[in-house]
Amino acid sequence: MVAALGLTVPQRAGRVVASDLEIKVLGPCRYTSPLAVRLAGMGVHYVGQADRVLLDDRLSNATGDPSRAPAFELAGPRDRIYFDTSKLRCAIVTCGGLCPGLNNVVRGIVLELYRGYGVEHVLGFRYGFHGLGRDGLEPIPLTPASVASIHHEGGTALGSSRGERDAREMVDRLDALGIGVLFVLGGDGTLRAAIKLVAEIERRGLAIAVVGIPKTIDNDIHFIDRSFGFETAFSAAVDVIRGAHVEATGVYNGVGVVKLMGRHSGFIACHAALASTDVDAVLIPEVPVPLEGPAGFLEYLERRVMQNHHALCVVAEGAGQDGIAPSRDGGTDPSGNVRLADVGVALRDRIVSHFRDRRVDATVKYVDPSYHIRSVPASPTDSVYCWNMARHGVHAAMAGNTEMLIGRWHGRFVHVPMALATRYRKQVDTSGDLWMAVVESTGQPVSWGP
Amino acid sequence: MVAALGLTVPQRAGRVVASDLEIKVLGPCRYTSPLAVRLAGMGVHYVGQADRVLLDDRLSNATGDPSRAPAFELAGPRDRIYFDTSKLRCAIVTCGGLCPGLNNVVRGIVLELYRGYGVEHVLGFRYGFHGLGRDGLEPIPLTPASVASIHHEGGTALGSSRGERDAREMVDRLDALGIGVLFVLGGDGTLRAAIKLVAEIERRGLAIAVVGIPKTIDNDIHFIDRSFGFETAFSAAVDVIRGAHVEATGVYNGVGVVKLMGRHSGFIACHAALASTDVDAVLIPEVPVPLEGPAGFLEYLERRVMQNHHALCVVAEGAGQDGIAPSRDGGTDPSGNVRLADVGVALRDRIVSHFRDRRVDATVKYVDPSYHIRSVPASPTDSVYCWNMARHGVHAAMAGNTEMLIGRWHGRFVHVPMALATRYRKQVDTSGDLWMAVVESTGQPVSWGP
Amino acid sequence: MVAALGLTVPQRAGRVVASDLEIKVLGPCRYTSPLAVRLAGMGVHYVGQADRVLLDDRLSNATGDPSRAPAFELAGPRDRIYFDTSKLRCAIVTCGGLCPGLNNVVRGIVLELYRGYGVEHVLGFRYGFHGLGRDGLEPIPLTPASVASIHHEGGTALGSSRGERDAREMVDRLDALGIGVLFVLGGDGTLRAAIKLVAEIERRGLAIAVVGIPKTIDNDIHFIDRSFGFETAFSAAVDVIRGAHVEATGVYNGVGVVKLMGRHSGFIACHAALASTDVDAVLIPEVPVPLEGPAGFLEYLERRVMQNHHALCVVAEGAGQDGIAPSRDGGTDPSGNVRLADVGVALRDRIVSHFRDRRVDATVKYVDPSYHIRSVPASPTDSVYCWNMARHGVHAAMAGNTEMLIGRWHGRFVHVPMALATRYRKQVDTSGDLWMAVVESTGQPVSWGP
Amino acid sequence: MVAALGLTVPQRAGRVVASDLEIKVLGPCRYTSPLAVRLAGMGVHYVGQADRVLLDDRLSNATGDPSRAPAFELAGPRDRIYFDTSKLRCAIVTCGGLCPGLNNVVRGIVLELYRGYGVEHVLGFRYGFHGLGRDGLEPIPLTPASVASIHHEGGTALGSSRGERDAREMVDRLDALGIGVLFVLGGDGTLRAAIKLVAEIERRGLAIAVVGIPKTIDNDIHFIDRSFGFETAFSAAVDVIRGAHVEATGVYNGVGVVKLMGRHSGFIACHAALASTDVDAVLIPEVPVPLEGPAGFLEYLERRVMQNHHALCVVAEGAGQDGIAPSRDGGTDPSGNVRLADVGVALRDRIVSHFRDRRVDATVKYVDPSYHIRSVPASPTDSVYCWNMARHGVHAAMAGNTEMLIGRWHGRFVHVPMALATRYRKQVDTSGDLWMAVVESTGQPVSWGP
Repeated sequence: MVAALGLTVPQRAGRVVASDLEIKVLGPCRYTSPLAVRLAGMGVHYVGQADRVLLDDRLSNATGDPSRAPAFELAGPRDRIYFDTSKLRCAIVTCGGLCPGLNNVVRGIVLELYRGYGVEHVLGFRYGFHGLGRDGLEPIPLTPASVASIHHEGGTALGSSRGERDAREMVDRLDALGIGVLFVLGGDGTLRAAIKLVAEIERRGLAIAVVGIPKTIDNDIHFIDRSFGFETAFSAAVDVIRGAHVEATGVYNGVGVVKLMGRHSGFIACHAALASTDVDAVLIPEVPVPLEGPAGFLEYLERRVMQNHHALCVVAEGAGQDGIAPSRDGGTDPSGNVRLADVGVALRDRIVSHFRDRRVDATVKYVDPSYHIRSVPASPTDSVYCWNMARHGVHAAMAGNTEMLIGRWHGRFVHVPMALATRYRKQVDTSGDLWMAVVESTGQPVSWGP
Repeated sequence: MVAALGLTVPQRAGRVVASDLEIKVLGPCRYTSPLAVRLAGMGVHYVGQADRVLLDDRLSNATGDPSRAPAFELAGPRDRIYFDTSKLRCAIVTCGGLCPGLNNVVRGIVLELYRGYGVEHVLGFRYGFHGLGRDGLEPIPLTPASVASIHHEGGTALGSSRGERDAREMVDRLDALGIGVLFVLGGDGTLRAAIKLVAEIERRGLAIAVVGIPKTIDNDIHFIDRSFGFETAFSAAVDVIRGAHVEATGVYNGVGVVKLMGRHSGFIACHAALASTDVDAVLIPEVPVPLEGPAGFLEYLERRVMQNHHALCVVAEGAGQDGIAPSRDGGTDPSGNVRLADVGVALRDRIVSHFRDRRVDATVKYVDPSYHIRSVPASPTDSVYCWNMARHGVHAAMAGNTEMLIGRWHGRFVHVPMALATRYRKQVDTSGDLWMAVVESTGQPVSWGP
Repeated sequence: MVAALGLTVPQRAGRVVASDLEIKVLGPCRYTSPLAVRLAGMGVHYVGQADRVLLDDRLSNATGDPSRAPAFELAGPRDRIYFDTSKLRCAIVTCGGLCPGLNNVVRGIVLELYRGYGVEHVLGFRYGFHGLGRDGLEPIPLTPASVASIHHEGGTALGSSRGERDAREMVDRLDALGIGVLFVLGGDGTLRAAIKLVAEIERRGLAIAVVGIPKTIDNDIHFIDRSFGFETAFSAAVDVIRGAHVEATGVYNGVGVVKLMGRHSGFIACHAALASTDVDAVLIPEVPVPLEGPAGFLEYLERRVMQNHHALCVVAEGAGQDGIAPSRDGGTDPSGNVRLADVGVALRDRIVSHFRDRRVDATVKYVDPSYHIRSVPASPTDSVYCWNMARHGVHAAMAGNTEMLIGRWHGRFVHVPMALATRYRKQVDTSGDLWMAVVESTGQPVSWGP
Repeated sequence: MVAALGLTVPQRAGRVVASDLEIKVLGPCRYTSPLAVRLAGMGVHYVGQADRVLLDDRLSNATGDPSRAPAFELAGPRDRIYFDTSKLRCAIVTCGGLCPGLNNVVRGIVLELYRGYGVEHVLGFRYGFHGLGRDGLEPIPLTPASVASIHHEGGTALGSSRGERDAREMVDRLDALGIGVLFVLGGDGTLRAAIKLVAEIERRGLAIAVVGIPKTIDNDIHFIDRSFGFETAFSAAVDVIRGAHVEATGVYNGVGVVKLMGRHSGFIACHAALASTDVDAVLIPEVPVPLEGPAGFLEYLERRVMQNHHALCVVAEGAGQDGIAPSRDGGTDPSGNVRLADVGVALRDRIVSHFRDRRVDATVKYVDPSYHIRSVPASPTDSVYCWNMARHGVHAAMAGNTEMLIGRWHGRFVHVPMALATRYRKQVDTSGDLWMAVVESTGQPVSWGP
């Protein structure tokens, strides 16, 4: 049986039960939604009765009482809301590494708050959670005018940083500023910090909603189909691969090696390789890469070079951490991510040695385009996606939802508890359709052997 | 209750029963799949037992016996196949208007046939069904080398045409050439012609599979989430809209009017407007557009111009056919499509008159970029998508499936009977999430009144 | 003898004498240039002794006393300047149709004034000369912050309009605002209006410099090698031509017709065709186009279609005004430009008729991308060019030069009197290198005959 | 006095005398040019009487007998030619590093030979001079069909390599293949090798013309205004700089360092910085860069960071070889180029240390995009330029010119002897207009001090 393109039920989802998908709320919804009025009730969900989408929609698993199957709450505007929008103050913070679309999401949240709900007080914290700390810079007011064209630029207009601040310090700041909703744009580490933030808010009995917009250029957060910026990123990588292909074919026995993002998940490497169709091998963290031996990577590569007089290899930064890259130093960055050894440089050197040993006159070209790829503006598709993430984030917040994020399940926007989304990392299913598509496209073996 | 981004169950799908989703096969699968061998059984479906995906995965509808709920067969390679690939001859034909990605699909089919299944005889018919006719040009042999770089160009390397040929004439040609599988890339009209073709094949008792790859730049075929080329097309439209916005803001009271594709469905207009976020109004075929009256479009537009001194309107070509555009002449094109009146020019003229009558000094800029948008090469995302459509089309054909096409349901590639896919047209659900996203983004009313 | 790529002495330049190239100044330069101090004298010209560049550098014409040969003054910073920059107020106005790079020039002028000379009062008039009129909108202050990212957008952040205002009215406005330098970005008509403005300024004895930055997307102003935005525009046209080529080759006997800008000069059509190399014929205003007859255009086109089963034709909007296009209505637009008949539509119709008469089944695709081409942001090369035009404009203005514009002669930036620049229009030299390059590239005849 | 944008007389050109500009020919032109017939004599030069362009067109130097002033021969088709084109066999070779436009030039030469002169035998040597060696691969026949779309790809369809082969070996090969004209696309080292080749050809008394198309992505060859591919390359660099700017502004005290090509000349760095306008400092080989001291680079950079909390620096790979980069190892690559130390990495490390020493919390982002920049397809402007280089190369060769290359002087295409072009390297004139434009744009000092 096969799993499809990053959209199926995760391998370990058998452990997910219905209650894992319940969304926390601040309290009852006492106010009529101004947006629901404007929409004349069209497209509006009734609070507490929003339609739900099955976690597992495969016929083979459709046994037992369907009403008790795990299912996600659909995102969307509600008929009634929790906050009095005439008094509400909201804030936004962008955390972690850059990702295309951050500005679109910030802009979308501001516009939806102003236009959809009449919320006129929106602040942007500067440089990630650092800006919520005691010594953080002053937050900046965000208005439709001030965000009018930020989406034409990459990066984040608010600035970002890695690492978190003490939850008490951050809640002090939110409380002092009278914030009712904090929108958090960030990845795995950021969302874990947000969970701690909610715990502190609850400890104090404050009515502050914390709503996440999941950000991961690697696309490695579960229950969001594809993360915003992912498409833009792998599309930018396609250009880089095309350049490496040109380089590899421009010399006799040219070998191109392109390192792409993907610390724990090879989604960018897989999609970029599929889109370019000139790639001979994709190395991802999910598939071990023995280099030596008759079924190892280097033999395979040599065969390709002998056959075509050029070859192209895409390697995710997290691939081959045990085999190719030198041993890790054990350190972590301020976000708590383990520092990875540089597999790209190591792989390049191993390839050079291999061909030298075999007395094959090959030229290896190594390209590491990371900064370039993550700093571009969002593509049109990601722009649409960011707009939807932003508006659904606002809808959810207005209804008083908290400790949750906007996800996307089987094509619909849904509400996902932060705890569930950070429970385990999304990875390429090596017996699934995405990896098969790569294997069919590159002609590489399903797995490398010694 | 709300329907989500083009991915939900169609409004009239209540009429769809389980048997509507059954796929026709030529006969039993007697051969071991060479691809299944290479994949070592990973990611392979067992013939007749492929996993199935529920048509409706909403909890609220999950009643009754789940095993009898309508469900799609998952696409993917099968463990056993129908054809003896060492002798098989295949052919490809591209029909109807241009659409980004046609060359990617053609290339993908050729590569998967050669590399995945060892099929070395592939022909490309020239200029659509015309090339299958008695007086058609000679088909051209397609090899990995001949298709090596066609995907870098827009359009179709095979040529296309509108209209069909007599089914008997076409089957004569297929039979004479010894074709076992015909891959048909085309839209609604093309698929209907393919159904007639299958009927004639069956009448003669021939073992020719006809597999469709649905092509519709308007994204208006059901059960395919989003059609290939659609993303590329609306992304190209975003640039055009940006230019029109620049024009509209470059003069005092500038009004930009951009006509986009969309004969019966406003998907391109909606997505392009969402991605650009500078649009004040989107007019689509699904929503009537009274121009006059206090709740009509012209009053709304005038308010926007008075407020910002510029405005931007995107109109799908099929919008306002009863109100804005002059009466149709009743004719049809060779594909059988009703010739539409030119709503863009008509709308421009009505806007000019309106402002003249109100003595407002406005300048209207009209842009009709159709040819430009549909002739670009596929974007990276569409390239991935086309590759998947192609390989799944090949997998389906090898297993002897016929009169079916590759669809995509809730994020997974599935098999869809041609009859079901052409039963009715996909349109924007005006109480669904896509239209709400547009309404929230533009600030326009949910519907226009008189 | 041959003239080279738009860079040679114009055909009628024999009539240009040395005094035609003299630049008018407001008065003696009493102030030390702050920029010259910062540059430590490097790269600085001494006032009145700037190096000069020969109008005609061909050896064959290098007779007589070289010191009396017509020569342009080199642009660049001067050691001493006319204005007291601590008190100076400057203004900028953008006139006429949109052209890529307008925002870059506006931004460049502001930055050079602030950073180079310490001028802190810069105003932007709104919507062209309209903004200098009695009822014009308030001008907006321009600062480095306010222009920080305007160059990432096409069009003009100031707005534009066609037509002029009474010179007295405009000088009233300049005088009332205390403007010392007016930078005028505009084309032929705009520059003529600027000459009238200078006359009125002189009549009143005011010390207001008027410095032009020549803007013409058609590249039809003399002594500026290539106008800013021209490269961006023809590059955008190349994409359009590529799309038309895809369309033309996508059907049997497809004929693409692309109308490009070029009212009186075919530079855009020529360069776009050269860059695309898929074009079979280029029709420009400088070369008459008899349609009928054995040496006419239609016979040529038919031969190409018969040979390749597709053909592509680029037509400048000003081509064939006497033969192809219907008779003009004699009207003019507010800039005083004669309204041209629509040659593109007329040509398309004539081609359709021709093939119908010859009973050839051809399909004609017509593309008119004008708005799209002129609204894009400036390319990197044009960005560099705009920066240089802006800074040299500022250098010239600071030295008290007036009634002049920045030109570019044989690769160097020079000062050109407005009267000389508007004396006659630059056109493609049909015995020169550019037209030969087109003829060699397309294979079309040097000229069409009846 | 100031020199203008890379177009003026080189500093050491005082040593150039008229005879240095004379072009060598194989012999008298006995044949009527088929192209001249087709062009009906328009735009054609008479052999031996082609118009000439003054090396120095500045009025201040226009003394003495103008007829003895150094002047270049204008490129262009001649009325009579040396070769019998019905029997002529030509060959093309591409040498050295990749450069955008190589395929355009190859394609242009093939098309002009076929269409303009009826030469039907054109060979492409594989992988540079290696392909002319005794053990070189078989050359491939080049036809209009085989080169039809190579210009849509970057790199070189022929392959390239560094280094040369023994001249005798190469002439053996040319002679054996009956080649009459060899077109050499390459840089400084390649052209020097070509001079040796001509010497060997002359020693043997063979009638083989060797015509160069100068290729240098660094734009560092004299007398060619701007080399093909240069514009494309610096334009690609602008995107990279924009990304680095986004990165630098995305964190608090972010410093971006972008290393660009430019071994001995800073043209790419200068133009890319001018086009992007976000750059705070440009470091080029022509300007020494003391890092320490109050007037050194690091103090300047620190001031910028303190002021704006971000800064951006562009460094050419050949900058700071004596100060910043570690001592060279003295080695050379196969083309004979001295291996440079990696200034980018060294500079990054020095900046990190500096801020650490000053206890400033800064984040340095380092980008080295070399491969990506040189492998892109030619821009439209470069496409036009390549076409002109190609056709003028063919015109020159047909007239029997040899040991020369196509140059561009003050905007016109001219013939330049190889010996003159390789006599010394073109560099940025640090008292000229280009460097002043950079200094005015970035605000950096004209030169750094200790």
